[in-house]
Amino acid sequence: MGIVVSLDEGKRELASVQPLVDLTAASMRRVNELILSKAGSDVEMIPEIANHLISSGGKRLRPMLTLASAEMFGYRGESHVKLATSVEFMHTATLLHDDVVDESALRRGRKTARMIWGNQASVLVGDFLLGQAFRMMVDVGSLDALDILSSAASVIAEGEVMQLSAAQNLETTEDEYLAVIRAKTAALFSAAAEVGPIVASASREERTALRSYGTNLGLAFQLIDDALDYGGNSKDLGKNVGDDFREGKVTLPVILSYRRGTAEERAFWKRAIEGGSNDDAALEKAIGIMKHYSTIADTVGRARHFGEIARDALAPLKNTPQKSALLEVIDFCIDRVS
Amino acid sequence: MGIVVSLDEGKRELASVQPLVDLTAASMRRVNELILSKAGSDVEMIPEIANHLISSGGKRLRPMLTLASAEMFGYRGESHVKLATSVEFMHTATLLHDDVVDESALRRGRKTARMIWGNQASVLVGDFLLGQAFRMMVDVGSLDALDILSSAASVIAEGEVMQLSAAQNLETTEDEYLAVIRAKTAALFSAAAEVGPIVASASREERTALRSYGTNLGLAFQLIDDALDYGGNSKDLGKNVGDDFREGKVTLPVILSYRRGTAEERAFWKRAIEGGSNDDAALEKAIGIMKHYSTIADTVGRARHFGEIARDALAPLKNTPQKSALLEVIDFCIDRVS
Repeated sequence: MGIVVSLDEGKRELASVQPLVDLTAASMRRVNELILSKAGSDVEMIPEIANHLISSGGKRLRPMLTLASAEMFGYRGESHVKLATSVEFMHTATLLHDDVVDESALRRGRKTARMIWGNQASVLVGDFLLGQAFRMMVDVGSLDALDILSSAASVIAEGEVMQLSAAQNLETTEDEYLAVIRAKTAALFSAAAEVGPIVASASREERTALRSYGTNLGLAFQLIDDALDYGGNSKDLGKNVGDDFREGKVTLPVILSYRRGTAEERAFWKRAIEGGSNDDAALEKAIGIMKHYSTIADTVGRARHFGEIARDALAPLKNTPQKSALLEVIDFCIDRVS
Repeated sequence: MGIVVSLDEGKRELASVQPLVDLTAASMRRVNELILSKAGSDVEMIPEIANHLISSGGKRLRPMLTLASAEMFGYRGESHVKLATSVEFMHTATLLHDDVVDESALRRGRKTARMIWGNQASVLVGDFLLGQAFRMMVDVGSLDALDILSSAASVIAEGEVMQLSAAQNLETTEDEYLAVIRAKTAALFSAAAEVGPIVASASREERTALRSYGTNLGLAFQLIDDALDYGGNSKDLGKNVGDDFREGKVTLPVILSYRRGTAEERAFWKRAIEGGSNDDAALEKAIGIMKHYSTIADTVGRARHFGEIARDALAPLKNTPQKSALLEVIDFCIDRVS
């Protein structure tokens, strides 16, 4: 593990997700078993596609949030395992549909399901996993948890449509962009963290703390993802530098560069993002402009801002190993870009 | 209203959906209001697409089943209106995704949403409506109803994947085909009918009766749909004769024709369904073969069989206007083909 110089905090060791992984390892084994069992079907294509995504090496951050945020209150039952699995299925369903919507060829360096089994199967298996997610939630029997997760499902889809409407529109404001990622990414982080205290019968204040932590962690996570797409240590990201650019996605580094740029630069962004002139030479130029205006660094700065809110959100909770691990995850998300 | 000669029952007036429409009219007005309100969003594309489908003149049979099957037990609250709306949203979401999967250009004689707004928006707005459906169910607060509807959501998607796997495979057996339509069509009819008695706190026997009615009505409905695609009075169907054929769908009239045909005819079906030689001349020839082997009539015969099971399923229920209306709907579904 290396040492990095973090400008605002002096020297510290690179943050790690490992404490969270270790603390939730036993329950994550049950989550993984449940994933395999609930993605099962006599219709062969369903487990094939589900396993393709599930085995593709995601960090499973979302289900770990659910587990830790229940276990920090001493919860020891089975409900949080079911809800964590539901959360992961909702996420997987979203990825399947997203890849269809974005016409993506690769995810985490592997062919997307749609490239192997086609768009049709990706849409339908996504629907199946969403249905299975709801069945598991119903099985848990908490109307509060159902309320939070079903609302998240609507909000996520609404956010995706919002993004589609704003797609390739360089006039998108930073506020509008934040509304999109609040819906499409932060809503599931938030729900994942809030259902933990619910099944653990924690207090309303504790629920609120974890909901706020999840929302702000999700915002930071997405902004770092956006920054990584234009550089940084992309090896743990599993996507290639420039994917967003080549898909014409309007993310924060682009929004800031467009706003801060000259007329000539704005014309470049129009051609690249709206006009599809987004080859490697254009990508190089885009990164050059971003460096000139510090828009990647400023995107990371915005992420740090939300990370700090997430940190303060957990302040009222009593100190537990889980709380420490969740705090370290904030830095881990941000350090990805160091 | 015309008089038709029904071979096995002598003369009777053509059955109508009107009694069901009349009995549920007051509650359907509340369903329609709720549809408009829950399909609303600040993201303009969502209500646009939702209203396109919702206003396209479907009969809204499924939500009427939910309403009648609650009101027949004297239920007068608001929960059945919410569940009926959820059922219609689940159906609408399925249609949006189906049109993407089938690459359909028309539905009920109008352009499909995917032709106007694109596949991407159709996938995502479908997801949004599914999310809203679950939120309304959660709002009702019945875990039994949630269990039934979330299971139906999984089963429907599983049936669609099953159909995709079997697509254009002429070796599909009648049993396999029935398994597909039991999942993709009958499951929602069944759930729609069963949640009525649940919110009305009816007995387990009454629930079972309506579930069985729904399943078998759904099977009959789908088989008649399959038959209508190759003829009959298609004016109230809203799809063109031959749509399934042109999409290479293996439905029961095709399955039976392929099994009963000569080697030469089987070669024709291979070319048409698997090979895509499905122009108007091929359609005419297909219908000719079907008439020769009576496979359209036999498909209707199979539908009648399930219609009779649906009828007997309701026998234990006490006589109410709703029960009469539901019985007449069985004949209405089958009479569409007369």
